[in-house]
Amino acid sequence: MAGAAALAVSSSAFSLSSCGNSKKDCCKGNECCTRSLNISFQEGLTPGETLKEKLDFMESLGVTGFEPGGRGLADRVDEIKNALEGRPIKVSAICAGFQGFILAEDPAVKKLFDTSMREIIVAAGKLGATGVIMVPAFNGQEPCKPHTQATRDYLCEQLHDLGEFAVENGTTVILEPLNRGECFYLRLVADAAAIARDSDSKGVKCMGDFWHMKEETSDYGAFWSAGTEYLQHVHIASRGRRKTPGEDGELDNYVDGFRALKQMGYDKYVSFECGMLGDPKEVLTAAVALLRKQWEEA
Amino acid sequence: MAGAAALAVSSSAFSLSSCGNSKKDCCKGNECCTRSLNISFQEGLTPGETLKEKLDFMESLGVTGFEPGGRGLADRVDEIKNALEGRPIKVSAICAGFQGFILAEDPAVKKLFDTSMREIIVAAGKLGATGVIMVPAFNGQEPCKPHTQATRDYLCEQLHDLGEFAVENGTTVILEPLNRGECFYLRLVADAAAIARDSDSKGVKCMGDFWHMKEETSDYGAFWSAGTEYLQHVHIASRGRRKTPGEDGELDNYVDGFRALKQMGYDKYVSFECGMLGDPKEVLTAAVALLRKQWEEA
Repeated sequence: MAGAAALAVSSSAFSLSSCGNSKKDCCKGNECCTRSLNISFQEGLTPGETLKEKLDFMESLGVTGFEPGGRGLADRVDEIKNALEGRPIKVSAICAGFQGFILAEDPAVKKLFDTSMREIIVAAGKLGATGVIMVPAFNGQEPCKPHTQATRDYLCEQLHDLGEFAVENGTTVILEPLNRGECFYLRLVADAAAIARDSDSKGVKCMGDFWHMKEETSDYGAFWSAGTEYLQHVHIASRGRRKTPGEDGELDNYVDGFRALKQMGYDKYVSFECGMLGDPKEVLTAAVALLRKQWEEA
Repeated sequence: MAGAAALAVSSSAFSLSSCGNSKKDCCKGNECCTRSLNISFQEGLTPGETLKEKLDFMESLGVTGFEPGGRGLADRVDEIKNALEGRPIKVSAICAGFQGFILAEDPAVKKLFDTSMREIIVAAGKLGATGVIMVPAFNGQEPCKPHTQATRDYLCEQLHDLGEFAVENGTTVILEPLNRGECFYLRLVADAAAIARDSDSKGVKCMGDFWHMKEETSDYGAFWSAGTEYLQHVHIASRGRRKTPGEDGELDNYVDGFRALKQMGYDKYVSFECGMLGDPKEVLTAAVALLRKQWEEA
């Protein structure tokens, strides 16, 4: 009863999680803490000639999430739905695939984004996806609005509308911070989470990618800044060369980040977005085992 | 022994703290976890006609840190040293006080910053201060370098030199994120910590201010992103109107942030920077009691 009372206090004081972050409490199986690691593979890296072969392989490893690209998704809804029928695998997130970009100065480029992104959102909703991943502006995308408060306000307004559209379609949009080499505009999970909050729509979320998170000073702090309110997806790769987890040996330590995910009761997916050096089936099998081991340790 | 072994593993895996973040472990008094709350007052808000009277009042409340402003500090080193002689109070951080700003386009304004900041750093070192607080560019400071990767690289280079100068003088420079109304350039603790890391000097640190941290989605995540490696100071105020903690009632909840500070073994100061509605002695006495209570709860 003392423990229950403490949890109740904690629950009222903090919105992110109904549990504290004591491992001791989590290990007792309180409802707020999810212990399972939900692994997802991107379609492109999964071995197999056909979608069926890919899903068979995923199923053999206990992988429960499938992340397709957004390009052309509208024409693949039935194909993917049928392929997943009767399997213990769901679509996780949709990886980008839109054209243009949201911070474009050129109205035509912005319109291209709006149109193509909404088409993908509709398809994502039909597939029950957790969301559609997007980047506000890659470094090369020019002309881009300047990095000012006014642009941030504009971004949040635009994301609000997009988020509400996503909610109407039963899904979300997921802001992905990248490293400085790809996207100076948005590099930190805490920044993405703050933008999601200021967008004021339950359809605007964020994610972390263990590869890009070399920008972070703390995987643990970064994921807690997103919290269950905003964290909707996670990408994973090896941490030295962006290959498959485990292919960079000792560098491939995800325990600090996993600890946050477990403590906050994260119930979405950790999805492979990575290259590969070795034999796909071998390295993916080893990677899944490695992540399960580290999740257990976290 | 099992507990000690677990801690050893944790220590090797993460650099931020040698302990895990289980409250159970921390409460057992492992050396890595500091349980005491070190409270500091800024000079200006402390009641008293003279420095002696101010310090007497602080001492009566068990306040152990004293935060003077940086302006004119060089001329006050002996005065402050003498006043602190034999007291259980030390200088905490030095609050700004420099002229110009580090991201100024105008070389003369940048030079003014360099000269005045270094003068304060020297005085801070003589006083044993934890560091000198600085903001890269307030919103009103123009012309300012544009918000680009090149500017960030420049900032880190400049901070490296400043940090090394601070180390030579036995102190640090502390980056303070502010809210968007005061400093769009640097709003998040995680961002400040990443800049400190990239500055590559042990003399470059960061801080969090509970008032400005309304920009954060999580006090807990923000402080963990700084961690003991970068977190060098904390400011506190009431959370509704930036008055004294407690003067905004239920809003003044610091437990989530304190929990991170306790778990990471934060051993620097939590310093009052705030306005005041009620009688200074009364509200400060009540505020110190409130913070001690919340620290205990955290």
